[in-house]
Amino acid sequence: MNNSDLLQDSFKQTKYQVGGHGTRNVQILKDAFDSVEGQSVSDLYGKGEIIEAFQAKMAAYLGKESAVFFPSGTMAQQIALRIWCDKKDVRKVAYHPLSHLEIHEEDGLKELHHIETVLLADKHRVIELDDVLTMKEDIACLLLELPQREIGGQLPSYETLEKISIHCREKGIMLHLDGARLLEILPYYQKTASEICSLFDSVYVSVYKGIGGIAGAILAGDQAFTQESKIWKRRHGGDLISLYPYIISADYYFDQRSEKMGQYYEHAKELATLFNSCYGITTLPQEPVSNMFHVHFHMAKEQMEMILAGIHKETGIGLSSYLRATSDESCFFEVSLGDLYESVPKSELRKVFNLLDQKMKEIKS
Amino acid sequence: MNNSDLLQDSFKQTKYQVGGHGTRNVQILKDAFDSVEGQSVSDLYGKGEIIEAFQAKMAAYLGKESAVFFPSGTMAQQIALRIWCDKKDVRKVAYHPLSHLEIHEEDGLKELHHIETVLLADKHRVIELDDVLTMKEDIACLLLELPQREIGGQLPSYETLEKISIHCREKGIMLHLDGARLLEILPYYQKTASEICSLFDSVYVSVYKGIGGIAGAILAGDQAFTQESKIWKRRHGGDLISLYPYIISADYYFDQRSEKMGQYYEHAKELATLFNSCYGITTLPQEPVSNMFHVHFHMAKEQMEMILAGIHKETGIGLSSYLRATSDESCFFEVSLGDLYESVPKSELRKVFNLLDQKMKEIKS
Repeated sequence: MNNSDLLQDSFKQTKYQVGGHGTRNVQILKDAFDSVEGQSVSDLYGKGEIIEAFQAKMAAYLGKESAVFFPSGTMAQQIALRIWCDKKDVRKVAYHPLSHLEIHEEDGLKELHHIETVLLADKHRVIELDDVLTMKEDIACLLLELPQREIGGQLPSYETLEKISIHCREKGIMLHLDGARLLEILPYYQKTASEICSLFDSVYVSVYKGIGGIAGAILAGDQAFTQESKIWKRRHGGDLISLYPYIISADYYFDQRSEKMGQYYEHAKELATLFNSCYGITTLPQEPVSNMFHVHFHMAKEQMEMILAGIHKETGIGLSSYLRATSDESCFFEVSLGDLYESVPKSELRKVFNLLDQKMKEIKS
Repeated sequence: MNNSDLLQDSFKQTKYQVGGHGTRNVQILKDAFDSVEGQSVSDLYGKGEIIEAFQAKMAAYLGKESAVFFPSGTMAQQIALRIWCDKKDVRKVAYHPLSHLEIHEEDGLKELHHIETVLLADKHRVIELDDVLTMKEDIACLLLELPQREIGGQLPSYETLEKISIHCREKGIMLHLDGARLLEILPYYQKTASEICSLFDSVYVSVYKGIGGIAGAILAGDQAFTQESKIWKRRHGGDLISLYPYIISADYYFDQRSEKMGQYYEHAKELATLFNSCYGITTLPQEPVSNMFHVHFHMAKEQMEMILAGIHKETGIGLSSYLRATSDESCFFEVSLGDLYESVPKSELRKVFNLLDQKMKEIKS
């Protein structure tokens, strides 16, 4: 067994884990469906009570005229950008170099929609007002991802968002929100979803990140926009005969967790402080602005895997199932706080971080 | 209430229905999941036991090297055609004028993949060998839909299929099977799925038609083909973090129903005979070649809706929830035989058709 398997294996055997809502297993679906009558009739190609009610609920929550349930954010966002490009008759959009569209979608936006991209800011920071003001290219749409996941979930200031929004409206640039983790940033901004969304022309929200559903996404905007998005949803093959397995679970976990985002955020700050108290460990951002952050180790991945696996065995508390190398001498993992953190015994947690600090020091000295 | 609402309403209140497996409700999912442990771990972006095991099972059943689970047939088939076009460096495919891709997908194939289409045969018959032999255009792929759903589920002879397959292989034309209802035609051809699929380079099968799952599709072919299809699946936004709600139900109902296709076929022939025995009613095909057929009435839709609604109320046996006009004086509906037919009392059924025949004659005289 190599070190990364060892780490994964040791993590699976821990009694407690600091991140997430728990294993993605079938029980998640069973729990959601226990609350639903067997006689409830399926949605049918985007129509029917189950889908229409949830779409209306999410439209209201996001403060938009209309919302559409999609099987995935990948599909929803490509379609949003395509609609804005068609509307503006400009086949170019701008986003962050580490946007999901740029690095996780096999270039679907380019291959299927032939849309060119302008990359704003750089791989180490979020898009700021100046990046937008100094952009020379003519674009149809600017996509902002809040928080910027691949850099630990960083955020610009709310004032920056407001200024970017005003600028885009003046210039006729459509502004799209990649709000995969929109709910998770509300406590930091101290805004409602609706207030944030009012700065944007279209919004995507994931139902399986902080909300913890099974899969799926919401795309919201004005009526004309969502109507067109349904045509593209069919073209993409996303207008399934039945989406209710995702919708019912999304609705169920939205109700359970939408009010818990403040708690996840507080826990994230607490946990980040614990990591930052250890020798050779820093979090990004240093103080989280949502329920997520990255933990960076100034140590080689192979060695760090052994250390974490050891801690998992010794304490029964899981920190991460994996590490990713950032250089020969450094590595990191991502953590998103969810339901599990509160059940981790605090005294045991302190023990974990004392041990971690001690082991880091031992090896470095 | 207008007549079509009256018909729909009366159908909903019938105790028995001649077609289908029953209402598409949440119980379908609940039943499938009762057989699965809550601790079973979700598939994750196309990987994991649940998805890999079902894909392997379907690949073996279809006699192909490899199979991939897709959220929809729309997505799977566009991707299959795209792969063959790229391979052949020809952006043109041929299919029937009533192909699903031509009439139900908002032109996704053209809008997303910029693939031109050649329409073979005409709207009243299936594609025959001569249509293929006399085709002048250079195409990458020929798609055959078996059975041809929009014309009542008609089929060419098996000999024709073999000859088309040989011709395509000689000419270097890839042959793709739209086998949405592949299992449903096995009893007529007296062939295994694997035998039929051996004539084709790639195959799509739906898991929610005769099989009766919730949603989803299988795309099968050789390793290189299915590997490439996974890249396109991600581009389309179909590589969901979790597809298990569809996979587990597909697997469950495949096991329940794959061996019942012969029964559905026999029932379809029996039911078609009953319709054909009535004045002013014909089925297409006259003798079904699968579990499905169309019922054509030589009577105006509005009038026929009243007649059927009356029969529903009088007998408690549902024939159809809708009718579609084909002219001012004719209309039709589609029926697919499934689990429900066997529970309809035979003596009551005879009463239905006596009544139907009588009413048709009364109005026409």
